[in-house]
Amino acid sequence: MTERTRVQRHPERGVYVRETIDAILDEALICHVGFVVDGQPYVIPMIQARAGDVVYLHGSTASRLVRTLANGVDVCVTATLLDGIVLARSVYNHSMNYRSAVVLGRARPVVDPEEKLAALETIVEHMVPGRWSDARLPDRKELKATTVLALALDEASAKIRTGPPKEWDEDLDLPIWAGVIPLSLVSGAAETDASVPSGVPRPPYAP
Amino acid sequence: MTERTRVQRHPERGVYVRETIDAILDEALICHVGFVVDGQPYVIPMIQARAGDVVYLHGSTASRLVRTLANGVDVCVTATLLDGIVLARSVYNHSMNYRSAVVLGRARPVVDPEEKLAALETIVEHMVPGRWSDARLPDRKELKATTVLALALDEASAKIRTGPPKEWDEDLDLPIWAGVIPLSLVSGAAETDASVPSGVPRPPYAP
Repeated sequence: MTERTRVQRHPERGVYVRETIDAILDEALICHVGFVVDGQPYVIPMIQARAGDVVYLHGSTASRLVRTLANGVDVCVTATLLDGIVLARSVYNHSMNYRSAVVLGRARPVVDPEEKLAALETIVEHMVPGRWSDARLPDRKELKATTVLALALDEASAKIRTGPPKEWDEDLDLPIWAGVIPLSLVSGAAETDASVPSGVPRPPYAP
Repeated sequence: MTERTRVQRHPERGVYVRETIDAILDEALICHVGFVVDGQPYVIPMIQARAGDVVYLHGSTASRLVRTLANGVDVCVTATLLDGIVLARSVYNHSMNYRSAVVLGRARPVVDPEEKLAALETIVEHMVPGRWSDARLPDRKELKATTVLALALDEASAKIRTGPPKEWDEDLDLPIWAGVIPLSLVSGAAETDASVPSGVPRPPYAP
């Protein structure tokens, strides 16, 4: 936690414990990466995956975004999980239940071949646990065409809202329904690609 | 579309039609707002809702974030919908199906009382259609404590990936399952707040 990552608004929602930050990063499939070019902020969705004290991002070596990030510019990586819509009697006290993690820093390109392969494994296993050992692993050309970036979890915070609506006392007697509509990201029935021969079994991670 | 919002990587995924951009903004409950303070980018999740040619954001008048945005700094508002995980035979060709919209510009504080109330209605109805007419509407003090910001959809683009994995021809014969695991954000059974009297019916938007 630093002055830059201290939660200002609703400070009671701020959490600076690594376990909590890690849990959010580990559950979120994607993050939104912010960076600045010519004074203009840009926010781009990217897959992220944490291993130990770093968050890995990746992309095509030809990508302008990835080249910009690899130059070591200041970034902000934010991962958000939506947990529910909070309906209070008053419009004013409506809210969202959510968990978000914010990481500030500069990403470094991962050049060590072993770390790079391990990072890609972390990313694949983060998205679909069990997939790495089934898929064809990247060859030398594919590895060369992929840039992996590592952002250290040195400066990070989480912000969390949970629980029921918070009402003004004078609203409690209004005959208005109040409560929480839970939200979650769920996976549906896997769609087998038409080119897959019928003899190839559907793996357990693609039910 | 401008040079700043032109999709560089996978240009075939770029869409600059307002209907497509609008549809993404209208489906996404939240966006991620990027802005710059002292050269450092920050990315914060916020509720957004579109009406006509503007995206509305809102927050507490006391919020440092909201005050910063209200000052008319350059922002980037990005809304992303995750539609699926794309599993190819090769690790390299794994991907995500998604729809994202990016809006650049400067937000203006909404000062006209009629537009402000209409914007709040847009936001509430965006989150929970039907709620505005059930809830207690904001009073003068609550309106004063709320800042609404409007960002014009003058400079925006969308990026979309859909469909099955794209494979190298030489991978097609590998005995590896490939396909798409669809993802969607779904709402669960509404949780009635303990303080709601048993006589208050559960509204249709909170099943």
